[in-house]
Amino acid sequence: MPITIEFWFDFSSPYAYFASLEIEQRLARFGKVILWRPYLLGVAYQTTGMQPLSLTPMRGAYARHDWQRIAESTGVPFRLCDDHPFPSQSLARAYYWLAEQDADHAVPFAKAAFHHYFGEGCSLRSTEAVLALAAGYTDRADSLRRWLDTDEARQVLRERTAEALDKGVFGSPFFLVGREPFWGWDRLPMIEVWLERHPDGCNS
Amino acid sequence: MPITIEFWFDFSSPYAYFASLEIEQRLARFGKVILWRPYLLGVAYQTTGMQPLSLTPMRGAYARHDWQRIAESTGVPFRLCDDHPFPSQSLARAYYWLAEQDADHAVPFAKAAFHHYFGEGCSLRSTEAVLALAAGYTDRADSLRRWLDTDEARQVLRERTAEALDKGVFGSPFFLVGREPFWGWDRLPMIEVWLERHPDGCNS
Repeated sequence: MPITIEFWFDFSSPYAYFASLEIEQRLARFGKVILWRPYLLGVAYQTTGMQPLSLTPMRGAYARHDWQRIAESTGVPFRLCDDHPFPSQSLARAYYWLAEQDADHAVPFAKAAFHHYFGEGCSLRSTEAVLALAAGYTDRADSLRRWLDTDEARQVLRERTAEALDKGVFGSPFFLVGREPFWGWDRLPMIEVWLERHPDGCNS
Repeated sequence: MPITIEFWFDFSSPYAYFASLEIEQRLARFGKVILWRPYLLGVAYQTTGMQPLSLTPMRGAYARHDWQRIAESTGVPFRLCDDHPFPSQSLARAYYWLAEQDADHAVPFAKAAFHHYFGEGCSLRSTEAVLALAAGYTDRADSLRRWLDTDEARQVLRERTAEALDKGVFGSPFFLVGREPFWGWDRLPMIEVWLERHPDGCNS
């Protein structure tokens, strides 16, 4: 059975933003389906006991410097929104609604969200901001608005987050290449090497 | 003033072991002095609130898999000692004693320690094991034995660890290229790119 590449991330993660801009360029040539899978990193933190980067002494300051450095060296726009980090529930739920209703528009919506928040520094904290963005990717934004406030919407994201944890995912970005785990934007080159050595995705 | 490269690490860190095997091959060509600087990562954890990798749920299992994978892909010996992680005070103090008494032997001793512990899986937890290893790098092992138990020995390592924290060092390995910080074995390629772009070590 052909393997897929799962790209797990929290929409509030700058390293996931950088990964989102590189993943296709680096990995598309291997011909695997790449599944974008937003989830709630904060729930993973409850299991691991880790803390959000920005709130960790020393590491937070390092990360802010590192994000600017990555943006400069890769030449991508980066403007950290004042309200970072932000709760990404509405955005992640909207992604899964689009994936269900109109699959072709889900990844473009995710890319637009990353660009809006990290490329332009514009907030996506409110449901209104999420809906305004989503309106460019669906003509049924009213249905999305109603759905976002349902138990079903909450349940969809809860199940995806539980799936992430079940699979050993605890960071953002986090890649599963078949069952092989890779944590971090800076592991994308290692994934390329791994796929060159394991074209069928088996690590035995 | 020419910049130096400071290589901060805890002797108990597998990622530091991998970095120790690559640092010269990757960075020597830039002609900078590379200073090896063991310190106590556990003290940094007290400041950041981070936990040892091995003890972090999910992340610990990932790291163990990752170490084996790195060893296989880079072709270096790796055999994790049963007593990992271990308190590296004696080893770090012995390193600084050698650096003071017989500077040319300090880095070879550090390399031998990494190989002994991570390449061969042999413990370096006891002072006796550290002294046995050091005997290959000094003919004054008796002086070292006496010194390791002094307040001065403790103070030397305490000061180095305080220096690390003052400089924003909080992980292992952690590199300061001039004042530019890089955290992690997987950032060595980024350091190469950075040095190519900033040959004099200034980032302005």
